[in-house]
Amino acid sequence: MTPSTSEEEAPPAGSDAGLLAPGSAASPASSTTSDTAYLRALLDAEAALTRAQAALGLAPREAATAVSSAAVTERFDLRDIAARARAGGNPVIPLVADLTKAVGAEYGPYVHRGATSQDIMDTATMLVAVRTLDPVLADLERTQRALARLAAEHRDTAMPGRTLTQHAVPTTFGLKAAGWRSLVLDARDRLTTVRDGLPAQLGGAAGTLAAFGAYGASDTRALVAAYAGELRLAEPLLPWHTLRTPVADLAGALAFTAGALGKAAVDVLTLARTEIAEVSEGGGGGSSAMPHKANPVRSTLIAAAARRAPQLAATLYGSLAAQDERPAGAWHAEWEPLRDLLRLVAGAAGNAAELMEGLRVHAGTMRGHLDLTHGLIVSERLAAELAPVLGRARAKELLTATARRLHTEGRTLAELLAEEPELQDLDIDLAGWTDPTRYTGSAGALTDRALERR
Amino acid sequence: MTPSTSEEEAPPAGSDAGLLAPGSAASPASSTTSDTAYLRALLDAEAALTRAQAALGLAPREAATAVSSAAVTERFDLRDIAARARAGGNPVIPLVADLTKAVGAEYGPYVHRGATSQDIMDTATMLVAVRTLDPVLADLERTQRALARLAAEHRDTAMPGRTLTQHAVPTTFGLKAAGWRSLVLDARDRLTTVRDGLPAQLGGAAGTLAAFGAYGASDTRALVAAYAGELRLAEPLLPWHTLRTPVADLAGALAFTAGALGKAAVDVLTLARTEIAEVSEGGGGGSSAMPHKANPVRSTLIAAAARRAPQLAATLYGSLAAQDERPAGAWHAEWEPLRDLLRLVAGAAGNAAELMEGLRVHAGTMRGHLDLTHGLIVSERLAAELAPVLGRARAKELLTATARRLHTEGRTLAELLAEEPELQDLDIDLAGWTDPTRYTGSAGALTDRALERR
Amino acid sequence: MTPSTSEEEAPPAGSDAGLLAPGSAASPASSTTSDTAYLRALLDAEAALTRAQAALGLAPREAATAVSSAAVTERFDLRDIAARARAGGNPVIPLVADLTKAVGAEYGPYVHRGATSQDIMDTATMLVAVRTLDPVLADLERTQRALARLAAEHRDTAMPGRTLTQHAVPTTFGLKAAGWRSLVLDARDRLTTVRDGLPAQLGGAAGTLAAFGAYGASDTRALVAAYAGELRLAEPLLPWHTLRTPVADLAGALAFTAGALGKAAVDVLTLARTEIAEVSEGGGGGSSAMPHKANPVRSTLIAAAARRAPQLAATLYGSLAAQDERPAGAWHAEWEPLRDLLRLVAGAAGNAAELMEGLRVHAGTMRGHLDLTHGLIVSERLAAELAPVLGRARAKELLTATARRLHTEGRTLAELLAEEPELQDLDIDLAGWTDPTRYTGSAGALTDRALERR
Amino acid sequence: MTPSTSEEEAPPAGSDAGLLAPGSAASPASSTTSDTAYLRALLDAEAALTRAQAALGLAPREAATAVSSAAVTERFDLRDIAARARAGGNPVIPLVADLTKAVGAEYGPYVHRGATSQDIMDTATMLVAVRTLDPVLADLERTQRALARLAAEHRDTAMPGRTLTQHAVPTTFGLKAAGWRSLVLDARDRLTTVRDGLPAQLGGAAGTLAAFGAYGASDTRALVAAYAGELRLAEPLLPWHTLRTPVADLAGALAFTAGALGKAAVDVLTLARTEIAEVSEGGGGGSSAMPHKANPVRSTLIAAAARRAPQLAATLYGSLAAQDERPAGAWHAEWEPLRDLLRLVAGAAGNAAELMEGLRVHAGTMRGHLDLTHGLIVSERLAAELAPVLGRARAKELLTATARRLHTEGRTLAELLAEEPELQDLDIDLAGWTDPTRYTGSAGALTDRALERR
Repeated sequence: MTPSTSEEEAPPAGSDAGLLAPGSAASPASSTTSDTAYLRALLDAEAALTRAQAALGLAPREAATAVSSAAVTERFDLRDIAARARAGGNPVIPLVADLTKAVGAEYGPYVHRGATSQDIMDTATMLVAVRTLDPVLADLERTQRALARLAAEHRDTAMPGRTLTQHAVPTTFGLKAAGWRSLVLDARDRLTTVRDGLPAQLGGAAGTLAAFGAYGASDTRALVAAYAGELRLAEPLLPWHTLRTPVADLAGALAFTAGALGKAAVDVLTLARTEIAEVSEGGGGGSSAMPHKANPVRSTLIAAAARRAPQLAATLYGSLAAQDERPAGAWHAEWEPLRDLLRLVAGAAGNAAELMEGLRVHAGTMRGHLDLTHGLIVSERLAAELAPVLGRARAKELLTATARRLHTEGRTLAELLAEEPELQDLDIDLAGWTDPTRYTGSAGALTDRALERR
Repeated sequence: MTPSTSEEEAPPAGSDAGLLAPGSAASPASSTTSDTAYLRALLDAEAALTRAQAALGLAPREAATAVSSAAVTERFDLRDIAARARAGGNPVIPLVADLTKAVGAEYGPYVHRGATSQDIMDTATMLVAVRTLDPVLADLERTQRALARLAAEHRDTAMPGRTLTQHAVPTTFGLKAAGWRSLVLDARDRLTTVRDGLPAQLGGAAGTLAAFGAYGASDTRALVAAYAGELRLAEPLLPWHTLRTPVADLAGALAFTAGALGKAAVDVLTLARTEIAEVSEGGGGGSSAMPHKANPVRSTLIAAAARRAPQLAATLYGSLAAQDERPAGAWHAEWEPLRDLLRLVAGAAGNAAELMEGLRVHAGTMRGHLDLTHGLIVSERLAAELAPVLGRARAKELLTATARRLHTEGRTLAELLAEEPELQDLDIDLAGWTDPTRYTGSAGALTDRALERR
Repeated sequence: MTPSTSEEEAPPAGSDAGLLAPGSAASPASSTTSDTAYLRALLDAEAALTRAQAALGLAPREAATAVSSAAVTERFDLRDIAARARAGGNPVIPLVADLTKAVGAEYGPYVHRGATSQDIMDTATMLVAVRTLDPVLADLERTQRALARLAAEHRDTAMPGRTLTQHAVPTTFGLKAAGWRSLVLDARDRLTTVRDGLPAQLGGAAGTLAAFGAYGASDTRALVAAYAGELRLAEPLLPWHTLRTPVADLAGALAFTAGALGKAAVDVLTLARTEIAEVSEGGGGGSSAMPHKANPVRSTLIAAAARRAPQLAATLYGSLAAQDERPAGAWHAEWEPLRDLLRLVAGAAGNAAELMEGLRVHAGTMRGHLDLTHGLIVSERLAAELAPVLGRARAKELLTATARRLHTEGRTLAELLAEEPELQDLDIDLAGWTDPTRYTGSAGALTDRALERR
Repeated sequence: MTPSTSEEEAPPAGSDAGLLAPGSAASPASSTTSDTAYLRALLDAEAALTRAQAALGLAPREAATAVSSAAVTERFDLRDIAARARAGGNPVIPLVADLTKAVGAEYGPYVHRGATSQDIMDTATMLVAVRTLDPVLADLERTQRALARLAAEHRDTAMPGRTLTQHAVPTTFGLKAAGWRSLVLDARDRLTTVRDGLPAQLGGAAGTLAAFGAYGASDTRALVAAYAGELRLAEPLLPWHTLRTPVADLAGALAFTAGALGKAAVDVLTLARTEIAEVSEGGGGGSSAMPHKANPVRSTLIAAAARRAPQLAATLYGSLAAQDERPAGAWHAEWEPLRDLLRLVAGAAGNAAELMEGLRVHAGTMRGHLDLTHGLIVSERLAAELAPVLGRARAKELLTATARRLHTEGRTLAELLAEEPELQDLDIDLAGWTDPTRYTGSAGALTDRALERR
């Protein structure tokens, strides 16, 4: 937590400090998902288990106090535990050994009593998830607020609507921002629902809670409730060692969030292109070689996260098919991908907040681009408006012929149509019909409605 | 629908009839997701659009009638439309041309009026999804009912709990079935929520609904509502051409369902192994070469679906990052994977219903396996029970020494402990402690509780 | 094969004709990978097996003739076989029954003799792969030739080099095309290597070839060789029922090809944007609503394929972990993803050939864009060239100050530098240094070298 | 490198020490792929670049010496660089700043001269890959040697061949081990080919090498060759900033390796099940709660790696579609997945070597299991052998009837057939035909042949 200034604090060879993760290295998630954070959560789970047993009279109060006092991350050697984790395939086994020793002979036997490694590991993972989702949700809130402001501010800022990379008809930047925001709100809603239901895990060796009974628990449901209550996690209906709904729900909601933010990022990347330049990132990233370049770094890092998240989620969905009472591989394959997803999404959410709070919108450039097709961007409207005037067939014919002349004569659709004899004495609003800023349809109303959503 | 008996009905070269899809070929989804079903849904969407416009006075009622009458799948040449779809990159373009022609000169202009291809394609996709999820949910209902019956029936059928492939402590088949069922209910809940919110799509060329205005609509919101109402789909807050929440939600819920069913399938595959044989599929599939083999085919096909679904979902999550107002690729990449997911899940749900309705449970074999470790399966209990009697250290020592003798002497833990002098005159229930069927912990209570969930 | 004109040829309800697959519907792969094509390959494998046995004296020659004559796709009811495939989980079981019947009582027993379903299915899959890769390789050849022409033609056509979406330094379109081509050649090389090694499959029930021995084969190796020889597939070292190297190799090479073509596609999509318009697709796809739009449809469909292929390959790589002698699920999960990959890549290769053969390159627009940054696109060069003249620090200072004035004064770097007093009387080539077409580095030489590769 | 004993060496909060990675935490790859290892490789690339320039007379020899001396990992603050990497989106930018400072005023300007961040990052990644693949290949060599020994030793150890989880016909453990080995050799061959071609990266800002020319290089090809030579990497034909063949090739070969090892792992997991117990891991992992359990931990960790690798490879294949001269996201999305793949495969290879060197094979148990189906495991043979004796129809009838009696009468196929009157006086080897150990087909010959491969 303290800044890394002295040499002693440098990570020892073999540990990672985020060098390959500029998208999340400095995010809150880098501390809520670090190995240290997992160690803390594992210890929290162990301490909660003993406290819950004490609360139900299954262990002396002194044991609960002793375990809680000993369960402090600083007392444990992360690297050593990681190395010893190899023998049994998970870090809880060596950690329990060390914690038992730290608690001492008298109360040591109450450490981990009745539990299986997976009880502690799964519970710790849920704690890490909750602790990471809190700042993520805060960053999504910042993002949606920034987008609400942009949408309101640019409710009527016309710009080209682009489909299959080509100008289609006009839209507004307000509607675009409102759309981005709606995805952010969708992500928020999904993450909030998932977070609020994340359960503690307690099942014992094979999910029957039998050992707790052997140690005297007559009401294992009360024990599970007390344990979950200590950790402020939800009480599960069943032990979920191989019923992985919580992990799959996290996977889905996190992949969704990455993609939701990714949509805005890829749009910004397009709009920020040198030729388009309708938006730019505030404080774009420099280049090592070209001082003039202001790279859209926030968007780039979000887009990179969005590329990775789906496949990480796939691995987690794949682990639903977990054999037996506790599986040989499916469970182990979850740990790092779930952490990676949490980190990627946390980094992306932080970057999105910064991106949207600092986004510069160049309304003039947008306006200018509406003329790039020399008026063809409103041809859809003219086809609709001229049909009742000229008849559908003739209207189409006229438009096609005029469109052909645009390129050869280098003039605009409005100019050419204004000269058309057959349109001369009609009571039609040709100027209005050919003004792209007046063909934004329901963009304004849609934006207003979308902004009503909180 | 009619059985394929005559030569004329054979699918022409180049079309697929499900040869590579035994997992779903005969499921209801093979007809609700076929090209013909998509064609029907596309036509339904077009007809609904014209009807909605007529309902709002934007088109003559006769146009609505004409389009609805013409929009019959039999009148369209699927293969020809598929081939012509290539030019514009989607099948709606040629379909609209054919439908317009079929409607005739007078009302043809009302076909597709104001819409973009994606409006129709996305709406059709949602219709296909709803139409497929209905039978899927029915199959999940059959599955959960069969599992509820199995769980109740085998509430107290003890069997080995297996962790990392090894016997750990006893569990019950009732708890196992209850766990499978809880996943099925989780899947049902997620699919139901998603299905009920699937929206119609209507946005026009760039999502502003502008063309509808040009054609006279003053209240585009009412138009969208009428259109959605015609199709019994939800009304969207915004056009979602590049706000792909509905597709991502489908992806997540479908991948979850495949995995949920996959969990039960991999368990059945394990339990049905020749050496284990604790369950068998009713009416197992034959082998081409070995008449004696009864392969667990239903489980195999479900397991295969569970292997594929996560990656299909990943592609769909990846398409969230869709550029612009309508994207060049991200959208096109959704169509087949979403259909594949629907098919796989529908096939898996049908197979799961059959599997669980026909599953044969061999309780005697389960009971026999509890003795395979010569009593070590209750060593956890003995360690707990003997500690207060002998002291924790001595209890452990005794158990370790006895366990070592098991293998060399070929006797059981119960026999050896019964001869231990220091356990002779104690008031302990050694017979009870070493009976694996009496060490199933809270399995019964957990099963009861899980079955309360509806 | 005949054009679909009459009603009888319409695919019956439930079969797919490519409606959702505009990227591949009309490609050669749609016929080499159809259900009919698989049926043909399955029959080819069966016939080859009997012929190989006859060649070794293990079956009468008449049996080989009878099976070969009967093994004609038209005689089999694809839809019926697909439906019956469900019972045993694969289509070979019902096909063998039908083929045996078709061959008749005398030689029927020689059908499939000694083989297992997977022998036939895997062999058929390899045949389908070979038959699909041939046209794919031809399309890649067309593509690379078109790209070689473009690269040579535009060897010196300068354009902006873009990094992180921003203009960086100039490059040439020749180098870009040469790069695309190098990926196509990489794909060709990988696909060719894989294709040339695709093996026949023959192992019998559990990969020991035992049944062939029971039926009299003393030299099963010769039998495998004869069988592979009949089909012009490679002879495998071992039966590979669960040694899935050939499938994984296909997966990798196909995913690579999709991505290699995808790189060019995403570049074209960028360069074809309305604001950039440096290239355009020949004969771009129309829009259903906006007649003026020329969508980059070929690139779009290739890009869509590139989005899907990696996840399909992932499923195939995942199936390497196949249990036992023949697996329950891993194998079944391969069939459709492998076909999908073949189709996607075949469609993409065809589209790439058309795309590159028709690509229009707008060199003038490229030239114009080099001035969009008012000269900053050569700032890297100026920093290098001015350093020895002015000293490194002063050079940097001058450039930074001048860059700042560009925006405010609306002039170019060349103009402003030309007025700089301290640069007045120096013997420097300021005009040359600020000419972006003269700062293309080794682009020409690299292009030349890349074109030497055949 | 020194063991972590003192408190000062504990990784600071926020860095990872492998707590969630028991599969690779203690492998050589944990040091060859750590952040420190990447830092070292980045510095190696920078130093090589200056040396290459010096070798060509483009920089003073003293500059090369100065940079090489300064480029020592210990002098750089990993955590600080990681945090500052966020601004520009990659760690090379801050590293170059620090290295330039460390080199000092005189030669600092020669640091990174002409290069772009991606040149250094890509080159460093290739160095890390080479340095990791060397120990991986060594572990694969150990693995294949252990498997060759097992295959030779158990060439004739008969065991049940299992298909779709059921006993099919006999096979041998020798053939099984030979199959596993053939996959290991396939992996070795693919990794070796890829490793030997991994290229250095040098292209400058947009891949034209232009800046090197501006700094005086007349022959950029020689510069690239010298740079690659310094690092013992291959010389690339073209800069490959967005021609990602090397990364995709790594992805494919690594995913293949994970799957190849995964096949053996899932087989061991099956064979080690309590009920099967045909093999066991030497020194299986303990359980935290059940002292008697010997978990197949090595196999579990390998299987977990095999579940994750395909999706990581998918992300890398997806990054082939990288826009422009250097992409905004596709490149950034490669870094961590490629490292993860290297780590997973390195860990899996190490575990596989240990697993196979220590694997205990229980030939007696295998033999016993051949009788589990009461002789049906040889029914395929009997059908073949009896057909010429009794006629095909009668043979089948007899076998079916006898098979039905097996279950009711609790006797073996051999016993029942021996009593059959019509088989009494025939000169047939009924004992031989019903002996499962004599129906292993070509297993021995196939094993021999497979072992000839080196």
